[in-house]
Amino acid sequence: MTKVGIIGGTGYAGGELARILSTHPGVEIAAMTSRQNAGRKVQDVHTYLKGYVDLEFTESISQTKDLDLVFVATPHGVAMKEVPELLEQGIKAIDLSGDYRLHDVAVYEKWYGHTHTDVENLQDAVYGLPEFFRDEIKGADLVANPGCYATSIILACAPILKSGLVGDEIIVDAKSGTSGAGMVPTERTHHSTCGESIIPYSVGKHRHTPEVEMAVDRFAGSHSKVTFVPNLVPIVRGIISSCYFDLKDGVTQEQVDEIYSKQYGNERFVHHVPEPSIRAVVASNHAQTSSKVIGSKLVTFGVVDNLVKGASGQAVQCMNLMLGLDEATGLDFPGLGV
Amino acid sequence: MTKVGIIGGTGYAGGELARILSTHPGVEIAAMTSRQNAGRKVQDVHTYLKGYVDLEFTESISQTKDLDLVFVATPHGVAMKEVPELLEQGIKAIDLSGDYRLHDVAVYEKWYGHTHTDVENLQDAVYGLPEFFRDEIKGADLVANPGCYATSIILACAPILKSGLVGDEIIVDAKSGTSGAGMVPTERTHHSTCGESIIPYSVGKHRHTPEVEMAVDRFAGSHSKVTFVPNLVPIVRGIISSCYFDLKDGVTQEQVDEIYSKQYGNERFVHHVPEPSIRAVVASNHAQTSSKVIGSKLVTFGVVDNLVKGASGQAVQCMNLMLGLDEATGLDFPGLGV
Amino acid sequence: MTKVGIIGGTGYAGGELARILSTHPGVEIAAMTSRQNAGRKVQDVHTYLKGYVDLEFTESISQTKDLDLVFVATPHGVAMKEVPELLEQGIKAIDLSGDYRLHDVAVYEKWYGHTHTDVENLQDAVYGLPEFFRDEIKGADLVANPGCYATSIILACAPILKSGLVGDEIIVDAKSGTSGAGMVPTERTHHSTCGESIIPYSVGKHRHTPEVEMAVDRFAGSHSKVTFVPNLVPIVRGIISSCYFDLKDGVTQEQVDEIYSKQYGNERFVHHVPEPSIRAVVASNHAQTSSKVIGSKLVTFGVVDNLVKGASGQAVQCMNLMLGLDEATGLDFPGLGV
Amino acid sequence: MTKVGIIGGTGYAGGELARILSTHPGVEIAAMTSRQNAGRKVQDVHTYLKGYVDLEFTESISQTKDLDLVFVATPHGVAMKEVPELLEQGIKAIDLSGDYRLHDVAVYEKWYGHTHTDVENLQDAVYGLPEFFRDEIKGADLVANPGCYATSIILACAPILKSGLVGDEIIVDAKSGTSGAGMVPTERTHHSTCGESIIPYSVGKHRHTPEVEMAVDRFAGSHSKVTFVPNLVPIVRGIISSCYFDLKDGVTQEQVDEIYSKQYGNERFVHHVPEPSIRAVVASNHAQTSSKVIGSKLVTFGVVDNLVKGASGQAVQCMNLMLGLDEATGLDFPGLGV
Repeated sequence: MTKVGIIGGTGYAGGELARILSTHPGVEIAAMTSRQNAGRKVQDVHTYLKGYVDLEFTESISQTKDLDLVFVATPHGVAMKEVPELLEQGIKAIDLSGDYRLHDVAVYEKWYGHTHTDVENLQDAVYGLPEFFRDEIKGADLVANPGCYATSIILACAPILKSGLVGDEIIVDAKSGTSGAGMVPTERTHHSTCGESIIPYSVGKHRHTPEVEMAVDRFAGSHSKVTFVPNLVPIVRGIISSCYFDLKDGVTQEQVDEIYSKQYGNERFVHHVPEPSIRAVVASNHAQTSSKVIGSKLVTFGVVDNLVKGASGQAVQCMNLMLGLDEATGLDFPGLGV
Repeated sequence: MTKVGIIGGTGYAGGELARILSTHPGVEIAAMTSRQNAGRKVQDVHTYLKGYVDLEFTESISQTKDLDLVFVATPHGVAMKEVPELLEQGIKAIDLSGDYRLHDVAVYEKWYGHTHTDVENLQDAVYGLPEFFRDEIKGADLVANPGCYATSIILACAPILKSGLVGDEIIVDAKSGTSGAGMVPTERTHHSTCGESIIPYSVGKHRHTPEVEMAVDRFAGSHSKVTFVPNLVPIVRGIISSCYFDLKDGVTQEQVDEIYSKQYGNERFVHHVPEPSIRAVVASNHAQTSSKVIGSKLVTFGVVDNLVKGASGQAVQCMNLMLGLDEATGLDFPGLGV
Repeated sequence: MTKVGIIGGTGYAGGELARILSTHPGVEIAAMTSRQNAGRKVQDVHTYLKGYVDLEFTESISQTKDLDLVFVATPHGVAMKEVPELLEQGIKAIDLSGDYRLHDVAVYEKWYGHTHTDVENLQDAVYGLPEFFRDEIKGADLVANPGCYATSIILACAPILKSGLVGDEIIVDAKSGTSGAGMVPTERTHHSTCGESIIPYSVGKHRHTPEVEMAVDRFAGSHSKVTFVPNLVPIVRGIISSCYFDLKDGVTQEQVDEIYSKQYGNERFVHHVPEPSIRAVVASNHAQTSSKVIGSKLVTFGVVDNLVKGASGQAVQCMNLMLGLDEATGLDFPGLGV
Repeated sequence: MTKVGIIGGTGYAGGELARILSTHPGVEIAAMTSRQNAGRKVQDVHTYLKGYVDLEFTESISQTKDLDLVFVATPHGVAMKEVPELLEQGIKAIDLSGDYRLHDVAVYEKWYGHTHTDVENLQDAVYGLPEFFRDEIKGADLVANPGCYATSIILACAPILKSGLVGDEIIVDAKSGTSGAGMVPTERTHHSTCGESIIPYSVGKHRHTPEVEMAVDRFAGSHSKVTFVPNLVPIVRGIISSCYFDLKDGVTQEQVDEIYSKQYGNERFVHHVPEPSIRAVVASNHAQTSSKVIGSKLVTFGVVDNLVKGASGQAVQCMNLMLGLDEATGLDFPGLGV
């Protein structure tokens, strides 16, 4: 059985990885680290894993032998310290933080505000969006798992950008549930603050902006400019990103839908639908796209569960590819619907 | 004491009117109609009005004598039947439905799907947004109270459009609480459907689109094209509309903020703020605008309580003007904050 | 492959059955009925089942050949008409409605307000709570699946009642998410009504009262009197029932916890925990109990996802037993946690 | 104009006091303190007070001259340090914390875990529940404003306890919105934790337990034992407390309702109603009680907005009495309803 580890097992992404991997038929969770909870049983911290994960948190991953692959689910700035050693030992790595997503060091340092200490591996990291980079992921030793917003946006934007039927300016108005902000309580995620509000934040300054621009540029062939406004909404799980384009003259709804249907028609986890629905994908690795032509404008929607297709589920999808397993192993179940 | 009546007292707008008017020092609620609840005490239907409104619902307003002004808070298509008779009797009217908002009959009939039967008064109706049409409202016999989305959008768009510093295409991504959908239960407003979701609806087809276009055209001097996407979010009260513009070269954040501050600096109910907040205005007639320059794009936000500044509070503000009262009478209290 | 059918496939319980069964390795969904949606593809109605259920809704189950077992997920009053025919054809049945839960016809008719037309099968129906009636369920042709409230309450009450350490009066204050009310929009489940409220309803009159009394009587040996107050709370999935008892002198927290731990220690789906958590069980068939001694009173908590362990998951658990499969087949995954 | 001050102006209770007092016709807010925000404008911290409160936060209240009355809205343990000095200067005080609620020092020290340093004033403090202690409040120099849970519970319990028609054991299952937990973000009030959950907490250990027992003992004439289980529910404002009693033989629904109607019939802010509703009282100082006889049990409900009648509104009601104003001054408006 393939052995995997999780660095940063206390947070939401780490817990969600453990939840998904605990029923995965092809791998075994052999280690989970947590500075805060080292020595405690995982199922005492994540009580929902009782009966599914029989491990104690350790201080560091190096205490575990024979790992084949490690997920790094820590705040940015940590992975770049952990990954070089993992790769040196021949352990494959999937980083769920932002450390390896931006190939251009200067762009990284501008948006993250600190030096990147592992420039070498940064160049080689593969962007872990299987629907667009499947072959590279299969051969990768290091995968940079996309951000939750970025996943929803790229799925919604890439097909039409590739088509050349839209202009090069994209306005993205995205709405995320609160679990996307992580497990650390803050004033903004305090229920009394956000429970009956919708809060735009990091307007024009969110770190997923360059990530989206980098990814979409690879499809568009030329540079697209993304104006990204994220909003916190009072739901626990789920993202819907609304992406606005200038449409070239005469393009019809049918043409647009055909482009998306063709792009995603054979995908296991992405579905082009008439009406997007967060509830249809919640608790699953499925995503939806949808589109409406409004005069000379086009709006496309991208919908994911931010913790699954937007984080840990997608990381497992990448892992499956890296390990030569069927891509949907351990992930092949529908969203909740209700 | 000035006597006012409410046609359509059962719905959310009618109840909210009664709530606000019940503590208004200058008027007395002399009649409330309801087909559904005729003969029942208002406070048995709207239990929160116990001790504040001591009336029975009547079948029709004509059963009441000596009204000075009547609010029509019915679904569209009803007001156009009630208003002519009110005006003939010399009773001023404020219509909270869409019947008198669009001056162009053809536009009305296209978006509402039925004939307009009171074209004459349609021409003379004043659009009841005091911050922009204060003088006309003062002299009006018939005011068309703006829609809740339209109020938030126009407040957010008008100053910058007047400035000529933006292009003529506006993308509006608006988010509304569920009370904006009214009191009739539907599949979309069923808690299990919307409670953990964000649902775009009527994409490109919402009836506030022409209303916004008509209003903003009066400021811009030329025609602006509005792409309007409303979203249902799981909060009870509140709207935030995010409006995206192309900004002319070299326009700065400071310039934009100055334009808004100048526009609203003397207003009692509209405030230009650095960070918009639904909770700051909820349960009050206050509104907020906010703006962020992002490269060559501008996003402006408009925030209201959809039932107050977005409906009944604004109607009372108009009533105050029509009756020669101080504009803020009965409305001069802050939002909840928490 | 064993073939199963679902009568009443449009509602929440029917959809949830299809969701769970679609990844069940031992059975195939061969038929789903819906009066409302007959002729439509299941995945066009329940869009989350796209790629998982490839069927059309039919008008009636009799159009399908060779079914081994049928779930009846209809409003009460319907199952009693469907079940006799199914059993005559040798098809096993699991009824998710209230039709076969109360063995005493008089009690049924008092609480449901209409005649029971299948008294014969009523006597033989097995109450489908595997943790207490596992052996009977294994041999049953007809299982009455417990109600969602009843499941949470019985799990929380039965162990201590069996122990004889508490009095015979139980006060149950239960809180349910809105999906427990079903898919038909009502005034109470309208988001603007319930989204910022907690609403006690059917106080002392809810039909799960006799169901709980019947079930707990079988453990207590004598009659217990249940005072049941359900509350609607603004969450989509989840129930927590708080059950208050008079505790006999000198009984300690340790004794109580030991009783529950012993009762559920070997159960796959029920866990006695120090702090109950709805999120720990949501989207899974797991349940939690918890207990606190407060002076001479005891409060015990029962927590389930109302649509899974409180309805469709439990029905599948019963099906597994009836078909000789491992009880957890298709259900062996943890709750969401977040 | 009477001058009042607020010690602890940053928190929810302090902000709510300022909100209510800002439109109060009989008093002027002359000072607000905040350690955290000293030197900042109140309206920059509480943006909803823009245009209503034109003050800067100060470090300490002693910087202000000529105050007639001071509200202390700080965490427990602070008021007992501030109050003695205020009283010495002849300034009346209303403490919104728990410092002066429990007359028995030993009980205070047991539940609050630290020494009480102002035992003298503790003896004289009047419990600020106007509906039961109106006359004492009128003459008081120091009022201990009741807790939010305690207010809802005492209103629901006192009338029936005074009647002698119930036993001396009360089970209270209370549900509170998150603003009752204050403004400091915690794990429990983090939206992802509580947004889709109902969380019992401090079971049997909440500090409002002795407060309720003390208050109800004064009505019952003998000691009542309260079993108190609070629950956090995902709404921002509102409490509903469900109180369960053993009813003496033969007592009818009509008798019970008459007792409550008689008790509260002349009250401005408490209403006995058939169906309790949080939305009916939210954002107002109104409270509701309701009752249902269920066999030999009685459940009564108490409903308040935890920040208004459960905290700052009630404090203003007390202030009005202490200053010889009409009790409802500045508070005479209905709840939101929707």
